Amino acid sequence: MRKVAISAAATSKFTKATERSIFDIAREPCIEILKSHGSKDVDAVLFSTCATEQYGSTIISEMLGIKPKMSQRVDNLCNSGTNAIATAYSLIASGLCDSALVVGAEKTHSEGNRLVWDVTRGSFNFPVHWASMFARSHMRRFGTTEEQMAQVSVKNHKNAAKNKNALFQKPVTLKEVMESKMIAEPVKLLDCSAPCDGASAVLLLSEQRAKKNENSPVWIKGIGQQTNGASFASMDDLTALQTARRAAHDAYEMANVKPSQVDVAELHDAFTILEIMAYEDLCFAQKGKGGKFAEQQQQEIAINPRGGILGCGHPVGATGVAQVAEITLQLSGKAGKRQVKDCKTGLVHNLAAAGSSATVMVLGT
Amino acid sequence: MRKVAISAAATSKFTKATERSIFDIAREPCIEILKSHGSKDVDAVLFSTCATEQYGSTIISEMLGIKPKMSQRVDNLCNSGTNAIATAYSLIASGLCDSALVVGAEKTHSEGNRLVWDVTRGSFNFPVHWASMFARSHMRRFGTTEEQMAQVSVKNHKNAAKNKNALFQKPVTLKEVMESKMIAEPVKLLDCSAPCDGASAVLLLSEQRAKKNENSPVWIKGIGQQTNGASFASMDDLTALQTARRAAHDAYEMANVKPSQVDVAELHDAFTILEIMAYEDLCFAQKGKGGKFAEQQQQEIAINPRGGILGCGHPVGATGVAQVAEITLQLSGKAGKRQVKDCKTGLVHNLAAAGSSATVMVLGT
Repeated sequence: MRKVAISAAATSKFTKATERSIFDIAREPCIEILKSHGSKDVDAVLFSTCATEQYGSTIISEMLGIKPKMSQRVDNLCNSGTNAIATAYSLIASGLCDSALVVGAEKTHSEGNRLVWDVTRGSFNFPVHWASMFARSHMRRFGTTEEQMAQVSVKNHKNAAKNKNALFQKPVTLKEVMESKMIAEPVKLLDCSAPCDGASAVLLLSEQRAKKNENSPVWIKGIGQQTNGASFASMDDLTALQTARRAAHDAYEMANVKPSQVDVAELHDAFTILEIMAYEDLCFAQKGKGGKFAEQQQQEIAINPRGGILGCGHPVGATGVAQVAEITLQLSGKAGKRQVKDCKTGLVHNLAAAGSSATVMVLGT
Repeated sequence: MRKVAISAAATSKFTKATERSIFDIAREPCIEILKSHGSKDVDAVLFSTCATEQYGSTIISEMLGIKPKMSQRVDNLCNSGTNAIATAYSLIASGLCDSALVVGAEKTHSEGNRLVWDVTRGSFNFPVHWASMFARSHMRRFGTTEEQMAQVSVKNHKNAAKNKNALFQKPVTLKEVMESKMIAEPVKLLDCSAPCDGASAVLLLSEQRAKKNENSPVWIKGIGQQTNGASFASMDDLTALQTARRAAHDAYEMANVKPSQVDVAELHDAFTILEIMAYEDLCFAQKGKGGKFAEQQQQEIAINPRGGILGCGHPVGATGVAQVAEITLQLSGKAGKRQVKDCKTGLVHNLAAAGSSATVMVLGT
């Protein structure tokens, strides 16, 4: 199979709701990518978004002056961006394309923030409702504490303060998180991410094309994906996401990488409890020990160095792309003030609503 | 590269607008496919639609009791279905998946029937406006006649009458087409397709999986795709679609097939002039001779045996899938009353708005 590289990555500033069009937002990181790529020769344009505008990939292509072979929009809620990158990977690995530009973009008030399709949730149809159930279950079964969850928020806001593109630019204290408004017990305001406007883009190249490029590329070494179902009722364990566990297993196996080899990771932390569950689902921590892992100040794995979703904001269709963009920048030594030293192996963990689907990717130099 | 087979295909009855949900419509052909497949073991579910409902692929997966690795929605207007199949092909050819269910579905009043993004069209923003410009240009330059265009409608309605799933079940006469209501000169009502409710699905398998199956599979031998732009203003020749010409060139080359070897073809005939242009763009006829080609009663290539878009109706996101489903049934000898004899090589030609993007696929036994 053909190897696939990520040769360029760019993320624009995530902001509160603006009057800009989804296309205007999407265009921004693409222009940066095309400048560094030095060419408009792109075989595929994949547009990840939950916005309802039709035909966006072709509109963006035209705005950029690109005439790709293939262009399409991809949607799978919060998992859209990583799905689009898995698609781009397969287009190149299969030989149909030699290059693919993946752009994720979202406006704050896009569709998809209410889980209207799932009647099993009754009136508890906001994401925070299931976060609350995950948190309660984890606390009851493993003794995880609200303070441990709050630590995740503190760490990610601290990291975001070093990232000029993050929505939140100020660190928060443990006290501030613990005293922030209760949204759905035990989940407080600062345990939650915020929807926002934002876009991110990455350029994938075939091995042959990547080696012509002067940049030393980052390789996609493993991809694992798993879908469970659209309903919360189909979950049999509220303390772990089976989708993420399966995706992680497959991604590690495909990459031939062990969890202990991961140097830097972007984890899906739309709520603090999700990052704690991710520690366990990705085998960074033993089952039930995620809360303890969150307490450690000097972790062996640098987690969410850009600030994660909690610190950066959550432009739904852009999030997965922004995660991959961050790991790409880290592994190529271009992460500036937030550069993690000596990182060679990176991981991306992304989820759609309530972990109903998960993607794990292993990247390496 | 791994070979990819289409091992099952099903299309539901295309109907006028109903009260059914998009998911209810989409589910129907999938159930038929899963019965013939005899297993719910499907690695990817790709949902092609222009409907604005979010997250449809996961909802459909849950309705079907499938837990795929990957699920996502794909949109590229009328080209969505063929884009989704190209994606499924690459997921399997790359080794990420061994099987992929592609389902296209649409409701009559889905988004995407007005080209609101293209200000270069001024107030001429319905598809029939550009069909009228194509028709006028072809008539002026090559002497193509309104009767020749009408012949396409007569042929496709005649074929549709043999297809129980087609929206239109009655043949029409040349006189009826010529005397039907003028919509945008010279395009008349019976030169136009009609939006409708409908769904179609195909199951793609890796070679290894396909050979375990008792059905003799149909292989995807070539795929060509080309995007021009979202605006009509970027077209430099109104008598040919450069996107389709390029896609055809690439698909023939990848399949190592000559136009003269094609036995059966599904061409995008949302308007009669598009089928005439397709004859030329696919090199079935010389440039300018498409009108003459339409007049021939006994064509060497069976074109649009299911009735095409003119006869079957145009459920936008389902159309590309239905085209591939038809060629699959034809090549596997399962097309019933409309079976084309001794066909071994088939072709699918699909377009998005105004030919702004095109897909050509070559299928074979």
